[in-house]
Amino acid sequence: MRVMGIDPGLTRCGVGVVDGRPGAPGTMVAVGVVRTDPEAPLADRLLALDDGLREFLADHQPEAVAVERVFSQHNVASVIGTAQASGIALLAGARLGLPTATYTPSEVKSAVCGNGTADKRQVTTMVTRILRLKEAPKPADAADALAIAICHLWRGGVKARIAAAVSKENNR
Amino acid sequence: MRVMGIDPGLTRCGVGVVDGRPGAPGTMVAVGVVRTDPEAPLADRLLALDDGLREFLADHQPEAVAVERVFSQHNVASVIGTAQASGIALLAGARLGLPTATYTPSEVKSAVCGNGTADKRQVTTMVTRILRLKEAPKPADAADALAIAICHLWRGGVKARIAAAVSKENNR
Repeated sequence: MRVMGIDPGLTRCGVGVVDGRPGAPGTMVAVGVVRTDPEAPLADRLLALDDGLREFLADHQPEAVAVERVFSQHNVASVIGTAQASGIALLAGARLGLPTATYTPSEVKSAVCGNGTADKRQVTTMVTRILRLKEAPKPADAADALAIAICHLWRGGVKARIAAAVSKENNR
Repeated sequence: MRVMGIDPGLTRCGVGVVDGRPGAPGTMVAVGVVRTDPEAPLADRLLALDDGLREFLADHQPEAVAVERVFSQHNVASVIGTAQASGIALLAGARLGLPTATYTPSEVKSAVCGNGTADKRQVTTMVTRILRLKEAPKPADAADALAIAICHLWRGGVKARIAAAVSKENNR
């Protein structure tokens, strides 16, 4: 299964595509960051983000999209932009009819580090090791996006199948 | 000028279209609420909201979109959903190439009530009076959407022209 992980953000939105299945290490297909200009009007930034995510989806054709869940505990000044970016990310996946899932930061950290309170450095180290990359993905948002994709591949199988079935039922 | 006002929300998103110009009372073209099922998966709700807003835009062909700005002071439990809905609303306008604007709740209240701390009842009363409606628009989200559209018509002329010029310049 091919999964696109998204670490939502308005200035930097991490994206990473991984091929894999539960219990296997997985292979990186693509990684990147969609950036928008902090000086541009908000609507233009959202449009640029949507365009960037759609292009990534079209180029790499994932079968599922996993997005990090936004928490109100985040920095209050940035939580609104992050929430808007996560909405655009989930919409982009849903618009293509792809199953979508969200994971909390601690679910993602637990999946790749075995520890829900692991720091960013540990996440980057484990992503690099799991995907057998020659060097660590940069910036941290890109490594986080790969971690979210790995989390979905390893933990999300059952969760995703239930969500897809519910979604199908609701769309009848 | 025809303006679509949007009071963003994930469960109830108010939409209202008003024809008018600065200094004139304005005429209501349409009002409504896009609702999504609180029990449905988040991505499905965002897709339903996007579909509803696009339909409203296609049906009423506004020349500008005005959205209430989300504040972190809102109820923490609902601010993330409201922020996601506002992102979808701004994207829907930008996707059509329409100028978009955001206004704080107090800017909207000042515009229609002359008082930035007016309560919901006052806003509904003034919207009903300004647009010479036979009865008050319901629910409150619908009245708020009309107030946002009136605010843009009355206050937004200069602000909107500057934003449109900046946006055009950025898209070169």
